[in-house]
Amino acid sequence: MNQTSRKAVVLLSGGLDSATVLAMARAQGFDCYALSLDYGQRHHAELAAAGRVAGALGASEHKVLPLSLDVIGGSALTDRSIDVPEAGGKGIPVTYVPARNTVFLALALGWAEVLGATDLFVGVNAVDYSGYPDCRPAFIEAFERLANLATKAGVEGRKFEVHAPLIEMSKAEIIQAGTELGVDYALTVSCYQADEEGIACSVCDSCRLRAEGFRAAGVTDPTRYRA
Amino acid sequence: MNQTSRKAVVLLSGGLDSATVLAMARAQGFDCYALSLDYGQRHHAELAAAGRVAGALGASEHKVLPLSLDVIGGSALTDRSIDVPEAGGKGIPVTYVPARNTVFLALALGWAEVLGATDLFVGVNAVDYSGYPDCRPAFIEAFERLANLATKAGVEGRKFEVHAPLIEMSKAEIIQAGTELGVDYALTVSCYQADEEGIACSVCDSCRLRAEGFRAAGVTDPTRYRA
Repeated sequence: MNQTSRKAVVLLSGGLDSATVLAMARAQGFDCYALSLDYGQRHHAELAAAGRVAGALGASEHKVLPLSLDVIGGSALTDRSIDVPEAGGKGIPVTYVPARNTVFLALALGWAEVLGATDLFVGVNAVDYSGYPDCRPAFIEAFERLANLATKAGVEGRKFEVHAPLIEMSKAEIIQAGTELGVDYALTVSCYQADEEGIACSVCDSCRLRAEGFRAAGVTDPTRYRA
Repeated sequence: MNQTSRKAVVLLSGGLDSATVLAMARAQGFDCYALSLDYGQRHHAELAAAGRVAGALGASEHKVLPLSLDVIGGSALTDRSIDVPEAGGKGIPVTYVPARNTVFLALALGWAEVLGATDLFVGVNAVDYSGYPDCRPAFIEAFERLANLATKAGVEGRKFEVHAPLIEMSKAEIIQAGTELGVDYALTVSCYQADEEGIACSVCDSCRLRAEGFRAAGVTDPTRYRA
């Protein structure tokens, strides 16, 4: 349990937000252990992107943990009988994956315990968040509290910190911050239904938020869209 | 979201405790959806036991979700380079699986959301608990709070309840309660290193707690031990 190494576990999806978070954690001096979940998502190209991003941004290690969320179903992202909608619906969308951030943070917490780390980084965002409940500040605070009760490290008096540096930022602000830190967004994939090469659909909620973000940030959008 | 059906998700390991919890949930009138995690545990016979227990106690459905916790390692139960110790060590033992109950409850929460259920049952126990931090009442309360912030159901004002009916019971009390509810403990496997047929080692912490429980309860121990 070497405290001086400042290890952190960073949840890395391969999308724009988590790539920015990894760059921020690196800029703060953390040795970053990137964790991606292979949860039966449609946009498998995201995982390939996660590997590229972990390498480009100097993660110390990148693990991909298979997680069969399709066994419980319930989301357009993991259940192929539910169509991914075009942007603009009201309320919590069908792309919501039940309890996703709770599950992902729990797994990040487990790896952090193994590593002797007490810092977790996650790219949740409460501004351009598509209405997912587990992207709000109160959720992050509740998870931090849980982590300190759930773990050997917490029992021993070390405090977990869940860093959600994007939580109050707009997509444009995230893109500006990441661009300043040298993130190459051409490596990332955000589309809910990207093809195997990571080419984006341009019509889903995630594509819409991303494209609007680049426009508002005044940064050239490197995303490859289907013709 | 049919509230009258009173669906509940029950975490079912195939061991003695969770079998008792399933019997208790059924006795309270819940339609029980049993969830087992195949997390690379050494005692794979537990999962076979979970299937038998789910059938015998009338679960409406039993799902086994593969979860590669061996990717993150860190426990004698998932990492074959760490030996399972004999009973009697001090402190949190190496059989502790990092963040296990946090991960398992998170997955149960996800399935509950899909089912429209807001009741989760888990067999954690703070008395004969081997020193695991995620078996304490404060942990369960913190998870319940998190669940209400993490989910669509919580946002919509329905309250999650995490039932941990064994939390203050001794192993002997658990065995007495289960025996009254008709649980056939011969179907269950508790040993950390049971063989493929579920034959127990008799020397690990889990075997010791189980054997002492039957003795203290005055109930004949149906466990099959290695000669």
